[in-house]
Amino acid sequence: MALSPEEASTVGKVISCKAAVIWAVGEAPVIEQIEVAPPEAGEVRIRIAYTSICHSDLHVWKNQNTKGLHPRILGHEAAGIVESVGEGVTDFQQGDHVLPIFMGECKLCAFCTSPKTNICSNFPVNPMRGTRVIDGKSRFSIKGQTLYSCYGSTFSQYTVLEHQSLVKINPAAELDKVLLLSCGASSGLGAVWKTAKMEPKSSVAVFGLGTVGYSVAEGARVAGASRIIGVDINPSKFELGKLSGFTDFVNPNDSERPVEEVIQQLANGGVDYSFECVGNTKLMESAFNSCKPGGSTIVLGVTASRVAKMELTPSSLLAGRSIVGCLYGGWKLSDIPDLVERYQRKVRSSSHNN
Amino acid sequence: MALSPEEASTVGKVISCKAAVIWAVGEAPVIEQIEVAPPEAGEVRIRIAYTSICHSDLHVWKNQNTKGLHPRILGHEAAGIVESVGEGVTDFQQGDHVLPIFMGECKLCAFCTSPKTNICSNFPVNPMRGTRVIDGKSRFSIKGQTLYSCYGSTFSQYTVLEHQSLVKINPAAELDKVLLLSCGASSGLGAVWKTAKMEPKSSVAVFGLGTVGYSVAEGARVAGASRIIGVDINPSKFELGKLSGFTDFVNPNDSERPVEEVIQQLANGGVDYSFECVGNTKLMESAFNSCKPGGSTIVLGVTASRVAKMELTPSSLLAGRSIVGCLYGGWKLSDIPDLVERYQRKVRSSSHNN
Repeated sequence: MALSPEEASTVGKVISCKAAVIWAVGEAPVIEQIEVAPPEAGEVRIRIAYTSICHSDLHVWKNQNTKGLHPRILGHEAAGIVESVGEGVTDFQQGDHVLPIFMGECKLCAFCTSPKTNICSNFPVNPMRGTRVIDGKSRFSIKGQTLYSCYGSTFSQYTVLEHQSLVKINPAAELDKVLLLSCGASSGLGAVWKTAKMEPKSSVAVFGLGTVGYSVAEGARVAGASRIIGVDINPSKFELGKLSGFTDFVNPNDSERPVEEVIQQLANGGVDYSFECVGNTKLMESAFNSCKPGGSTIVLGVTASRVAKMELTPSSLLAGRSIVGCLYGGWKLSDIPDLVERYQRKVRSSSHNN
Repeated sequence: MALSPEEASTVGKVISCKAAVIWAVGEAPVIEQIEVAPPEAGEVRIRIAYTSICHSDLHVWKNQNTKGLHPRILGHEAAGIVESVGEGVTDFQQGDHVLPIFMGECKLCAFCTSPKTNICSNFPVNPMRGTRVIDGKSRFSIKGQTLYSCYGSTFSQYTVLEHQSLVKINPAAELDKVLLLSCGASSGLGAVWKTAKMEPKSSVAVFGLGTVGYSVAEGARVAGASRIIGVDINPSKFELGKLSGFTDFVNPNDSERPVEEVIQQLANGGVDYSFECVGNTKLMESAFNSCKPGGSTIVLGVTASRVAKMELTPSSLLAGRSIVGCLYGGWKLSDIPDLVERYQRKVRSSSHNN
């Protein structure tokens, strides 16, 4: 996966490459030839090796507020290789294997220096940002026209982003696997290990079986959960779910009773932990109401609207129930290399056993 | 405070004494002569030495659902002395100093054996219960008529309750002081020490300055809070608040801006912990919105309606904000003797210094 001599020769030059360009809100992406400028101070240009699609990409794609930010390149779940670095970048160099992350860690602000949040004041999650921080310009252009970015804009063969939004990983890790640690899988594992700090033998309900929900189950299984109940209205998700560690499945459409009542009955009055992985306020309420006294609900799902509201009955809180949210599982970017190592140890141990 | 020979002679007999009787929902209490039967198996009869009024008494007093439970004796925040014990009670004896608690700890159920909640399945908080658990009868009567109980029914000179709802305390503790540990003061201190597990140097906002709010401030001050902001629409609470440790006060009526914005400005973007001590869903929302990313809101206030709803914006949760509730501060009854000891150590240390 090292850079070829041709690639190395692009340093300092504009790169012409292909990208999936969105010309207007909600329009289908078009594969276009685009130009990617070299990185400015503090930035890194990377070649995207693999990228995948996340539901949050769809939220941005359909977001009418982003009208003025088109044409645009979306995508944020990816893995790549450093092509070149801008002035002053010392923590990355050509050839490094990296994961671009949709948020940053400046390590300087009040949030970065606090253990309680992984939000960074200087590099927050902001789908309304379409240019680079240092000069408010985009490094992308198409036929001379500004082409806006979004997060890491990984639906491009090359992209540029601030070094604070990049994680350097073990070059032995297979990029087509660990790319999921740049968003979905980390979000699920972190929700269990970092945010919930789930104890062994806990009972768990997971609402929404996609990459995130499967990863929550995987995290819960590894952490020793006694029972992992998957909730989805699409039963075709259940078979794959068994591989992730789910022990039971509930299809809300199979019962006339509210799903929380079904779960309460399955789990002797409620689960210890519930995870909402969809971004649906009604499901968040069901997840909260599925917990027993002392139980915790972890919200991972991102609502399409930033002003969506969920309703809680405070008398349910008083029994010691809690609700907490997390983005990216609560991980700071600096936690991720260890997470990749943890995956690698498992890969090595499996291949050793074979 | 020991029982007099006359008192000791009441063992096994019906006691005639005075109590504040509520004849119908919302009607003024009337001091009446009533009868208190001896304790049945597992029960304890105590002489109330001191009692105080809590806002939750008013909720029950006005609760139309309790119509069938009148005449009734309210009151639950109190301290007293054991007059006699029923069959099988071995953990209490005549003359013990005790605090009656509005909930119980059976030490056997799944909740009691879990560290995550202080709710007991067998002795939950239930304002709709007007009789004793063992036989569904009341130990109170007035002129031959059933007189219903509520929690400890401490607005009576004598009361009977299950030993699981009583805490034995150091007899050296002044009952007119430590009676507050049977409800309000414990609720506030526990919310900080037990539920929030607040770290030193935290910033804090407290909504509602009554016994509970003052106790939250006291708990936060002792735990090393850097700043304790009191929020109340009654500025006459502020002067006394300074003694509890409040460093700043906000009267929401003094500003046209929402109170959360005032607090965000005062506390560099928000506080680490906010405490709602009123039971008002709008204040719970303000408290939640007063926290910075990674901050926690602790709900102590009991809403008048059990079905009242509060609204949360899930996107605010995603930055690591959390909300949790607690009754009685999250303490189990078995934690309370140590809390009284902690108070006693302070009393001894103050008198030693004088």
